Amino acid sequence: MHEHDIKSFFADEENLLRDDYLFFTYSVETCVEPRVALAGLCSEMSTAQWSRPGKDEDFRPKFAAKVVHFEVLEISKTPHFVSAFHHAEAYTRLIVRIAYPHRNFGARIPNLLTVACGEGAFYSHGVSAIKLLDIDFPDEYLSAFSGPKFGLDGIRGLLEVYDRPIFCGVVKPNVGLKPEDFVSLAYEAWCGGLDIAKDDEMLADTEYSPLDLRTKLAGEACKKAEDETGTKKIFLANITDEVSELKRLHDIAVKNGAGAVMVNGFTTGLSAVRSLSAYAQVPVVSHFDFMAWFSRIPFFGVSSYVMTKLQRLCGFDLIIMPGFGSRMLSEEDEVLDNVETCLNTFGNLKRSLPAPGGSDSAVTLPTLFQKLGHADFAMVPGRGVFGHPAGPRAGALSLHQAWDAVQAKEPLHLYAKEHKELALSISTFSS
Amino acid sequence: MHEHDIKSFFADEENLLRDDYLFFTYSVETCVEPRVALAGLCSEMSTAQWSRPGKDEDFRPKFAAKVVHFEVLEISKTPHFVSAFHHAEAYTRLIVRIAYPHRNFGARIPNLLTVACGEGAFYSHGVSAIKLLDIDFPDEYLSAFSGPKFGLDGIRGLLEVYDRPIFCGVVKPNVGLKPEDFVSLAYEAWCGGLDIAKDDEMLADTEYSPLDLRTKLAGEACKKAEDETGTKKIFLANITDEVSELKRLHDIAVKNGAGAVMVNGFTTGLSAVRSLSAYAQVPVVSHFDFMAWFSRIPFFGVSSYVMTKLQRLCGFDLIIMPGFGSRMLSEEDEVLDNVETCLNTFGNLKRSLPAPGGSDSAVTLPTLFQKLGHADFAMVPGRGVFGHPAGPRAGALSLHQAWDAVQAKEPLHLYAKEHKELALSISTFSS
Repeated sequence: MHEHDIKSFFADEENLLRDDYLFFTYSVETCVEPRVALAGLCSEMSTAQWSRPGKDEDFRPKFAAKVVHFEVLEISKTPHFVSAFHHAEAYTRLIVRIAYPHRNFGARIPNLLTVACGEGAFYSHGVSAIKLLDIDFPDEYLSAFSGPKFGLDGIRGLLEVYDRPIFCGVVKPNVGLKPEDFVSLAYEAWCGGLDIAKDDEMLADTEYSPLDLRTKLAGEACKKAEDETGTKKIFLANITDEVSELKRLHDIAVKNGAGAVMVNGFTTGLSAVRSLSAYAQVPVVSHFDFMAWFSRIPFFGVSSYVMTKLQRLCGFDLIIMPGFGSRMLSEEDEVLDNVETCLNTFGNLKRSLPAPGGSDSAVTLPTLFQKLGHADFAMVPGRGVFGHPAGPRAGALSLHQAWDAVQAKEPLHLYAKEHKELALSISTFSS
Repeated sequence: MHEHDIKSFFADEENLLRDDYLFFTYSVETCVEPRVALAGLCSEMSTAQWSRPGKDEDFRPKFAAKVVHFEVLEISKTPHFVSAFHHAEAYTRLIVRIAYPHRNFGARIPNLLTVACGEGAFYSHGVSAIKLLDIDFPDEYLSAFSGPKFGLDGIRGLLEVYDRPIFCGVVKPNVGLKPEDFVSLAYEAWCGGLDIAKDDEMLADTEYSPLDLRTKLAGEACKKAEDETGTKKIFLANITDEVSELKRLHDIAVKNGAGAVMVNGFTTGLSAVRSLSAYAQVPVVSHFDFMAWFSRIPFFGVSSYVMTKLQRLCGFDLIIMPGFGSRMLSEEDEVLDNVETCLNTFGNLKRSLPAPGGSDSAVTLPTLFQKLGHADFAMVPGRGVFGHPAGPRAGALSLHQAWDAVQAKEPLHLYAKEHKELALSISTFSS
């Protein structure tokens, strides 16, 4: 590419109309001169050809992606990932911010992903590693999205729980368990104080546990637990299925008394979630299956941060995400950033309720609260409630006891002296 | 896990009912004892808890994933990917074949992906790297899928081209180009002998190029080119959009004369493709955007081979995939395997037409044919047709000339002496 062509893929951010652009942040490793690599990247992502042969025209001013900032971080003699296709003396690692005119595709998730994570962005000349770290959306673009219909505040309103974390629990065992038995475990946990009892992400509408029967029994048990406890309860039904079935399964689940539905967004498609959210009469909850396969490797793929943002954009009211600790292979900053992006100002979109999960129990509650610094989150224990030695009712109760200890600013093990369910959680789930 | 528990996640394949299982092949790196790691992996992917506390029951015989074979490839002192979460003296690298009872989720793409690439499979104890390499489907499972409605033979029938590769071309430039100008380039290429002129994967239904207008003009031009050449032509419209819009855009495109529609399957969702394919009146064509982000790294993610299989399963009639050569960063075997899986016996599903692409032109045709060993493929040049110095008509013609040279078993440069369009392709596109 000639120098004057390279220049047309660079711009001063101050000269751009903020509302016309999305801003993509990538980490890039390149084995060619950085400005050449980045101009090529912008070109491949947008106007790969910017004029017809022999015509005096140039589509770049209006349609090209443009580098507005980049910063070289280091130069390495070895690449992040050895490949047969990139050989060089040196590999430059940098962060780049690219302004992308969204008029090229509009407020459409599949087309946004095509541009940000498509052939162009990936197979760009001299780029030996690339990871999409962030997308910065102007309010004008966000206004085309409805976002969560209920959001954090809506879920709090449904549960009438305003001042503590939401206690959600995955019924265990689940795969192989008959609906009657499954629901009686949920019932026990609700009675012990669980707010939301949920289907595992691997449950489906199958012969051994048809969604209709499971939600019918769960809906009845939920009402019974509400009557017994005088508090609100939600059964969260996993309706992950073929896109063509989502609305039908939503209708069955809601009619039967499910207070929320779950969809594995990345295996089903975020665009389908956007439709479902617009249609849903109850909160829509995400599970993160498949996300690790493109987000977990440093310097390659798409960050979970981008995917959390997109999940909020598509209307997930509650976002289950990999949480703290070695179980979920996530660095602390990553979890904190993902929680934050559920809650911060994002156009006029409602806040999503973040649920950083992974081997949680009453034991992990104080740490979770302390790390996050607020109570606007959901816990999603499985074994921590349903594997409690005294049963799910005691497991759920121990979560409340742990929260009471936090509120009383008392160490768990001291508080547990007077609370045997908590004491059992500590002896069972402390690692 | 106790030894007797570990054993329940192993089975002899000969003792399993073939039709009841899918078989997943993973490459796995583990920092714990392989049998322990693999039993844990199977457990996390299926019956993580296999009984209720205190109950004499076991869901594993019917519902557990089971290792039927594994083979240690090497033991390394360093992991494939350095992470804060996996420290060990040694890392065992192996290939494992896992039998998975599909009664757990049924013939549903999102649920299949949830199991094969979900939280369980990824966040399994002691697994420091994992890549899904293959899924082996029994015919009974495949019979629940319709697969391609037209397939390779259907597309050949529509075009009345039976004995050579299909010449498909991406109109360039495209982003920023007005529909009138865009279509006149397509028209020229059709007249030169192109079979299918296609939208770029980044085109959408936008203000500067509304799908309705683009397909209306393209439909008219397509008819005109058919009349002029006396051969069949297809305009391939990119209808990638929100899932809720796919059928509407399909109807517009088809009414206007588009002979095929394209969807970026991984950004839109494979499940949505399955619905669209069942609905479509014309062939449905894939583009591979987003696939690289989870398939490109060795030993991590999901292979493009699995994704090609799934695309055929979901009904793509023509599958555009990364082709040979350094441009698309693909090893030769990977491309050959992906082409093969479009064409081999796969239950009763029709064959998909494979289109291995990337910087193709008349120059690459002989090599492509020679590597594949047959003519059952589509070429997808962009610049190779539309960047031809004598225009798209000459660019398309040069493809036929190259094919004639191949048929005559004559080297391109000799054949080009009497064929100036081919000669120009050689001088322009030889690398």
